[in-house]
Amino acid sequence: MIFSSDNWAGAHPKIADALSAAAGGFDSAYGSGEWDQRVRAKFNEIFEREVSVFYTSTGTAANSLSLASVQKPGGVAFGHDEAHILEDECGAPEFFASGGRLCRVAGEFGRIDKAMLQTAIDLFPEAGLHHGRPAAISITQATEIGTAYSVEEIGAIGDIAKGNGLPLHMDGARFANALVTLDVTPADMTWKAGVDMLSFGGTKNGCWMAEAVVLFDKTRAAEFAFHHKRAAQLLSKSRFVAAQFEAYLADDLWLNSARHANAMATSLANVLAKSNRVRLAWQPQCNEVFAIMPGGLKTELNGKGARFYEWRKPASFAEPIGGDEVLCRFVTSFATTQADVDKFAGLLR
Amino acid sequence: MIFSSDNWAGAHPKIADALSAAAGGFDSAYGSGEWDQRVRAKFNEIFEREVSVFYTSTGTAANSLSLASVQKPGGVAFGHDEAHILEDECGAPEFFASGGRLCRVAGEFGRIDKAMLQTAIDLFPEAGLHHGRPAAISITQATEIGTAYSVEEIGAIGDIAKGNGLPLHMDGARFANALVTLDVTPADMTWKAGVDMLSFGGTKNGCWMAEAVVLFDKTRAAEFAFHHKRAAQLLSKSRFVAAQFEAYLADDLWLNSARHANAMATSLANVLAKSNRVRLAWQPQCNEVFAIMPGGLKTELNGKGARFYEWRKPASFAEPIGGDEVLCRFVTSFATTQADVDKFAGLLR
Amino acid sequence: MIFSSDNWAGAHPKIADALSAAAGGFDSAYGSGEWDQRVRAKFNEIFEREVSVFYTSTGTAANSLSLASVQKPGGVAFGHDEAHILEDECGAPEFFASGGRLCRVAGEFGRIDKAMLQTAIDLFPEAGLHHGRPAAISITQATEIGTAYSVEEIGAIGDIAKGNGLPLHMDGARFANALVTLDVTPADMTWKAGVDMLSFGGTKNGCWMAEAVVLFDKTRAAEFAFHHKRAAQLLSKSRFVAAQFEAYLADDLWLNSARHANAMATSLANVLAKSNRVRLAWQPQCNEVFAIMPGGLKTELNGKGARFYEWRKPASFAEPIGGDEVLCRFVTSFATTQADVDKFAGLLR
Amino acid sequence: MIFSSDNWAGAHPKIADALSAAAGGFDSAYGSGEWDQRVRAKFNEIFEREVSVFYTSTGTAANSLSLASVQKPGGVAFGHDEAHILEDECGAPEFFASGGRLCRVAGEFGRIDKAMLQTAIDLFPEAGLHHGRPAAISITQATEIGTAYSVEEIGAIGDIAKGNGLPLHMDGARFANALVTLDVTPADMTWKAGVDMLSFGGTKNGCWMAEAVVLFDKTRAAEFAFHHKRAAQLLSKSRFVAAQFEAYLADDLWLNSARHANAMATSLANVLAKSNRVRLAWQPQCNEVFAIMPGGLKTELNGKGARFYEWRKPASFAEPIGGDEVLCRFVTSFATTQADVDKFAGLLR
Repeated sequence: MIFSSDNWAGAHPKIADALSAAAGGFDSAYGSGEWDQRVRAKFNEIFEREVSVFYTSTGTAANSLSLASVQKPGGVAFGHDEAHILEDECGAPEFFASGGRLCRVAGEFGRIDKAMLQTAIDLFPEAGLHHGRPAAISITQATEIGTAYSVEEIGAIGDIAKGNGLPLHMDGARFANALVTLDVTPADMTWKAGVDMLSFGGTKNGCWMAEAVVLFDKTRAAEFAFHHKRAAQLLSKSRFVAAQFEAYLADDLWLNSARHANAMATSLANVLAKSNRVRLAWQPQCNEVFAIMPGGLKTELNGKGARFYEWRKPASFAEPIGGDEVLCRFVTSFATTQADVDKFAGLLR
Repeated sequence: MIFSSDNWAGAHPKIADALSAAAGGFDSAYGSGEWDQRVRAKFNEIFEREVSVFYTSTGTAANSLSLASVQKPGGVAFGHDEAHILEDECGAPEFFASGGRLCRVAGEFGRIDKAMLQTAIDLFPEAGLHHGRPAAISITQATEIGTAYSVEEIGAIGDIAKGNGLPLHMDGARFANALVTLDVTPADMTWKAGVDMLSFGGTKNGCWMAEAVVLFDKTRAAEFAFHHKRAAQLLSKSRFVAAQFEAYLADDLWLNSARHANAMATSLANVLAKSNRVRLAWQPQCNEVFAIMPGGLKTELNGKGARFYEWRKPASFAEPIGGDEVLCRFVTSFATTQADVDKFAGLLR
Repeated sequence: MIFSSDNWAGAHPKIADALSAAAGGFDSAYGSGEWDQRVRAKFNEIFEREVSVFYTSTGTAANSLSLASVQKPGGVAFGHDEAHILEDECGAPEFFASGGRLCRVAGEFGRIDKAMLQTAIDLFPEAGLHHGRPAAISITQATEIGTAYSVEEIGAIGDIAKGNGLPLHMDGARFANALVTLDVTPADMTWKAGVDMLSFGGTKNGCWMAEAVVLFDKTRAAEFAFHHKRAAQLLSKSRFVAAQFEAYLADDLWLNSARHANAMATSLANVLAKSNRVRLAWQPQCNEVFAIMPGGLKTELNGKGARFYEWRKPASFAEPIGGDEVLCRFVTSFATTQADVDKFAGLLR
Repeated sequence: MIFSSDNWAGAHPKIADALSAAAGGFDSAYGSGEWDQRVRAKFNEIFEREVSVFYTSTGTAANSLSLASVQKPGGVAFGHDEAHILEDECGAPEFFASGGRLCRVAGEFGRIDKAMLQTAIDLFPEAGLHHGRPAAISITQATEIGTAYSVEEIGAIGDIAKGNGLPLHMDGARFANALVTLDVTPADMTWKAGVDMLSFGGTKNGCWMAEAVVLFDKTRAAEFAFHHKRAAQLLSKSRFVAAQFEAYLADDLWLNSARHANAMATSLANVLAKSNRVRLAWQPQCNEVFAIMPGGLKTELNGKGARFYEWRKPASFAEPIGGDEVLCRFVTSFATTQADVDKFAGLLR
C-alpha cells in the first residue's frame, strides 16, 4: 500500500525490457544516435507537427531550462501558488535564469485563475524598469493537486499569454494522466491551445528517468541546445533515455499506464469518500487523491503499512481543517494494484 | 570498429540485468531508498572511510557542482589546458558558479605541471581584490589524453593545494581506468593523496548513466545537498542509478571492465606503433590512444568502417604534425573486442 | 512644489561645498585614502562600535549586495510586501545572488508582521531540500510608505532572526528620517536591536550619491570585499563619496536635514488632513505622505505645478478607495520649503 | 610626484564647479532630467550620430554590462592578455553574464594581434556545443600599457568582428587619451571602425565619477536598460553625472585634459629615457609610462616621495628583466604638473 508518490515505483517491465534490449552495440552519443532519431520522429507523430526534443534528467531541469530559455533581465514568470516550480524545486528555476523571478498567482483547485493572472501581469507594465517585466507563464498539467485544466481553460491562458506577448510553458510531469482524463490529443492539449514549451514527463508514469523539453517552435532549438548543454543536461549515452521513450510511446503504453493510475486513484477516492472516518478534500481527476482525516488515524494507517504523506493545505482550499485533522496526499501509478486499494479499504473499515 | 568514444557503447550486460532486476517494487525516492543505502555503504568500503555520495546525470554536472560548491566571488579554479572542464563543458563550470573563473595551467601529457601550477596560483595573491583569488584546483584522472598521474604526482599537487589552502577536485570520468593502470587503491589515488572531491564516473565504463560526486569530508554534505538539488540534479527514482552502481562495484566488475578497456587500448597502440603508415603520438596508459596519420589515410579508414575522431593538437604536445597529417583519437571500452582491433590492424596493413 | 521624490532634489550646499573642497590634491584610490579613513572613524563613532563600511553607488546595490553576501543555494530572504527590494529593484537582489529567492511577508503600514514572519519562515524547514531554506530577513527603516518601526518592533524581528539563525538586514534608504522621528541612537535602531547589515543611505537626504553597506560584524568584511568588487561597486575615486559622507555626518547635518524633511511632511500632512477635497491615507512618521483624492483633483493639481505621483495601493491598506479616487504619494526632503507647502495649501483651497 | 594612477587625482576645477552649480533646484531622476537630455544631445554631437548613453558608477560596470548584454549560454568573449576585464575586475564580467567566459588573446604592446584573434575564434566553431561559441570581442583604447590602436588597427579588428558575426566592445577608460594622441574623431575611432559598444570613461581624466556605456545601435537601448537597472547601475540623482559630463565635454575640456596628461607622460618618458639608471620599457603613446629599474632604485625613489607602482611584466613584452630589476608604471593625469616631472628628474640624477 505505497501511495507516497508515483516516483516510489520502479520501471514498467516493458520499459525495463526495452532498455535491456538496447544495451548492446554502439551508437553515437549526445542525442545524435539512431534511437534518438526514432524517438524524435515519434514525438513529431504524437504532436502532429515537427517539434524539438531535449532530454533532461529531472523534471526540475526541464522546467528550469524551459523558463530560463525565455527569461530576461528583470523578467518575471507567473505560476500557480502550488506550482512545483514555486514549491518544490529549491530555487532551481531562478538559479538557471541567474535570478529570473517567479510570481505566484492564485486559483482554485490548482489551476491559475484567468482574471488573477491578467491582474498579476498588469502589475508589471512593460515600460516599468523598476518593477520588472513579465517574461513567461507556466501551468502544470495535471496540476500538483490531481486536477486538470480543460483544453478550453488552457486555451484561455494561451490567449492571455499571446495577448501579453508571453511564452506559455506547461509542466507536464503528469502529462499522460491529464491527457487520458480529458480524452484529448497531445496537440489539442498543448500547441493548439497556445502552449510553446512542454516539460514532458515519463518518469512518474513508468520510466526510470525519461524527461524531455518539447519546443513547438523548432527555430528555438539551436539556441536552446546551448542552454541545455551549459546546464549539464546533455546526456552522453542518450540512447538509454531514447530506449525508454521508445517503449513508453509504443503501443499506447504511456496512455494505458496513465489510465491505470487514474483508475486506481478513482478507486481509492471512492474508498475514501465512502469512509466515515475520512473525507475527500476534492474530487481527483488524475492520479493524486487528497483526503482529510484525524492525525491519529493517519498514524494508525501508516503504522499498518499504508504509506502516504501529510500535505500542506493549499492556499486556495477554503474548507476548514480541524485542529486535530491533517490533509493527506495519496498517489497512484502504473504499479498500484487494485489489491493495494482493497487492502487499504480494509484498514479503513 | 567503433573507437569514437567510450560513450558510444551501451551498457554492460551485468549492469543492464541489475537494472531490470531493480525494476519491480517500491522504494523511497530522492536518494533515500534501500538501494541507495547499500550503494553508500559500498562507497565507504571502497574508499576505506565514510564518504558522501551524490548522483549526477552527467560528468559535467559532477565537475561543475564540485567546483561550484567551493567557488567564491572573484574565485579562480585551476585546471589543465586540455581539461574537460575547460574544453568540453560549454561553460557549465562557470555557469554553475555564477561566474567563477577557470584558469589554464600547462603541463606535459595532460598532467598539470607542479611548478607551473604554483606560478599560476601566485598570480592571484589572496589580498588581490582586483585580480581575483584562488579557489580550487582540478585534475583529471585518467587525463583527457589517456595518460594518468602517478599517486606521487597527485600527492605533489595535493601538497600544493594544501599549501595554498585550496580544495582539490579530481575529474574521474575514467577513474577506474587510471586505478587499474596504476594498480593502487581508490583511497591511495584520492583522499590519501590530498583529493577533497571526486567526480566518480561509471558511464564511460559500462553503465548507462552512473556518475557521482564523492565528498571525502562528510561535513560538507549538508550544504552540498542544496547545490545539488538547486542544480536540478536530485534524481527522483535514484534507485536506477544505485542499481547500476551496485552491479558496477560488485565482484570487481568496474575494475575488470577498465582492465579490459585498457588492454584493448594497449593492443590497439601496438598495432598503430607497428604500422609504417601511422605513428603513435604518445604512449597510452589507459583507454585512449592517439596517433598521427595522413589525412587521406584517416578518410580511407573511416570509409572502411573504422570510426574515430580527428583531435585538436594539445598545446603541450611539442612534436610537429605535418601539413597533411592529422592527430586522431581512438577510445576503447568494456565493449571493444580483440576482433575489432584485429580487424582494424588488417585495414592498416 | 516638487513632491515627486526626495531624489529629485540636488545636493545640500554643505555637501556640494565639501565636495569642491576635496577636489584638489592626490589621494589613494579604492577606499584606501585619507578621506575614507576619516569617514570610517566617523561611522564607528556614530554606531558606537567598530563597523565595516562599503560605499555603493545605489541603494539597490547596497541592498542586493547585503543580501547576496548571506544568500545560499535554495535560500529565501523575507521582506515586506511593499519592500523596495521586492517592488522596485528589477530583480537585482535575486540577480546579485544568482537566483536567491525573495518571499513576501504581509504587515500593516509597511511593517513586517512578527507572527506572519514566523509563519512564513516555518514554511521552509531547514531540512526541506525541496522547498528551499530561510537565508535572511530584510526590513526597511523608514518604511516605503513613510512609517517607521519602533526600536521594540525591530528588536522583536531581531529576536525572530536570531531565533531562526538568520541575519537581519535593514534597508536604510531613509535611515536618518526614521532616526529623528524615533529620537533614538543609530546603535539602538540597528545592532542593539539585532540588525546585522545596514544599507545606509545619504542620497535621498541631501547627498549627490552617498550610499554604504555597514556591516556590524567586522569579521565579514574580508569576504564582503570580494562581493563588492565583483559587483563593480568598488569606486576608484572613493574620496568623492567620503567627502560627501564627511560633510553629511558632521555637525548633525544628516539629522537636521532629516528633521527638516520630516517637519515638511508633517506640515503637508496637516494641509491634506484639513482639506475637505482629499483625505490622509495614514499618518506619516517620516518624509512621505500618502493621501486619497479624486483623480480629477490630482490632474488639476499637477496641472498647476504640484508634482507628485499616483501610487499603487498597498496590499495591507484595508480602507476602500473609490472608483474615481487615486492614492497619491508626496515626498519631502531637505530642499522642500514651507513656502512650497503653503503654496500647495493654497491650491487645495 | 604622484604617478601611482590617474585615479589618485581629484576632480578638475571646472568639473567641481559645474557640479556645485547643479546642486540646487529639482530635476527628475533616473536619467530623465534636463541635464541628462542635454548630455545625451552632446554625446550625439560628439559621435556624429544618435547614440544611447547609460551612466555607470565604475568602468568595471560599463565593461561588464556591455559584455553581459551580448553574452549567451556557452559564450566566449575575447580580450587581450593584459585587458582590464581579464586582469583587474575580479571576475565581474563573468559574474554579470552569469558565467560568460573570457578568452585571452596575445598581441604585442597591449594590442590584440589580428591573426591570433582569428585563430582564437576558430577554436570555437559555431556548431561546437561542447567547446562553447564566440560571443564578443573587447579591445581597450588606450591600452592598459599606455599604447593605442591606430584607427586602421581598430578597423581590422572590426572587420574580424563583422566577419565572425561578433559585436565589438571598446573599453575606453582612457578614451580621450587615445583620441588626442591619434588626433582623430570619436566617430573614426569607434563606430566607423566597427565598434558597437563603448565604455566611455571620464573618471580618470578629471571627473569625480563619470562613466558611461555608449551603444551605437540605439535599437538595443530598450533591452540594455533592464540589464543596467538589474545590475544596480541606474543612478537616482543622475544629474550629478550629467553635470560632470556636461562640463567635461564642453569647450574641449576632456581633450585638453587628455593632451596635458599625455604631454606630461611624454615629458616623463624623456626624463626616464635620458637617465642611465633606468630604461624605458616601451614608447608611451598616452598617459602611462613603463620603465625598468633596479629594485633598490625604486625603493629609494619611493622613499623620496615619488609614488609609482611595480607592475607585472606583460606576457607580450619579450625583453628580459634582470633578477634585481623591476618593471614600474607611471601614470600622469590632468593634475600632473611639469614641476612634478622636473622634481622627479632631479631625484633621478
